[in-house]
Amino acid sequence: MEREQMIESVRSQMPEKRWRHTEGVMATAVLLAERFGGDPRKAELAAILHDVAKYWATDRMERIIREQGMPKELLEYDKELWHAPVGAWAAEHDYGVTDEEVLDAIRYHTSGRRRMTKLDKIVCLADYMEPGRDFPGVNKIREYSEHSLEKALLAGFDSTIGFLLEKGRMIFPLTVEARNGLIEELTKQGG
Amino acid sequence: MEREQMIESVRSQMPEKRWRHTEGVMATAVLLAERFGGDPRKAELAAILHDVAKYWATDRMERIIREQGMPKELLEYDKELWHAPVGAWAAEHDYGVTDEEVLDAIRYHTSGRRRMTKLDKIVCLADYMEPGRDFPGVNKIREYSEHSLEKALLAGFDSTIGFLLEKGRMIFPLTVEARNGLIEELTKQGG
Repeated sequence: MEREQMIESVRSQMPEKRWRHTEGVMATAVLLAERFGGDPRKAELAAILHDVAKYWATDRMERIIREQGMPKELLEYDKELWHAPVGAWAAEHDYGVTDEEVLDAIRYHTSGRRRMTKLDKIVCLADYMEPGRDFPGVNKIREYSEHSLEKALLAGFDSTIGFLLEKGRMIFPLTVEARNGLIEELTKQGG
Repeated sequence: MEREQMIESVRSQMPEKRWRHTEGVMATAVLLAERFGGDPRKAELAAILHDVAKYWATDRMERIIREQGMPKELLEYDKELWHAPVGAWAAEHDYGVTDEEVLDAIRYHTSGRRRMTKLDKIVCLADYMEPGRDFPGVNKIREYSEHSLEKALLAGFDSTIGFLLEKGRMIFPLTVEARNGLIEELTKQGG
């Protein structure tokens, strides 16, 4: 599918405000890819599609999770997590994306995962820090992103886990594994 | 093995200060078992043995983890976690304990686990709140323990996860799953 056609289709599936967020993630993902030696074209493609399923009906997402054999434990956790794997399915099924790296970056953009690829990190971090985001700690994330993808993303996961901890809400184990993986990488980097 | 003989043997494997902690866990575990309908004898037995391997040499613990086919991921995480599964092994191997419920309560007393038994919760909570413990939030845990095993233990896990988050240290995924399980139980209880 042509880029412009894809953009129009994705845009039509979300409120205008969410589309502006998506544009922010696109620009930020391209910038991070250029800064950290990633592939800007793949980063932009994953960013365009990352929230495509965000406003799909809950029962539609649940059906896809069940029918496509996605991890059932997803259904025990916050619905906020569902649109990411469902979005990866939509990217392949509705938009013909076949690049597994791009599909994974969409699939794990909310939860993260153990051993994240560079593209996973770029899209996940762009989602945390695009210019429209405003939450406690976001400027620290932006600062870290000047020189370290891992340090910035770690600060992002810390803010999510801290928020859920404070609110007494369940924490998705994959996010903790993603954070552990980043700590391990940073330790190896000597940072 | 006789109770007194077991106590002397366990005591001989740790500094006197740690033994006093163990005595605190024993008394607290019995009290919690009586309060929440657990088995005080099993609770005391698990408490006597819970830290038996705490001062074993790291390489001895590592060897037992590898040789006994315990989850290898343990070795990627804080050594503080190792003495619990190794202690369960020692309870069976050195002290002839065969009760799986008691062995599990020893095995998971540091990490917790998804779907904790009542005995797991009692021993884990007693370890957090025995009278010798002093850390930020311990009195809140003690207060909650007056009426809810789950609420008190949740506060314990929250303090551990919050501490690791703040220190930038890895969080063991099983602890997050244990915390999620308690939130689920409390939601079902309507609390």
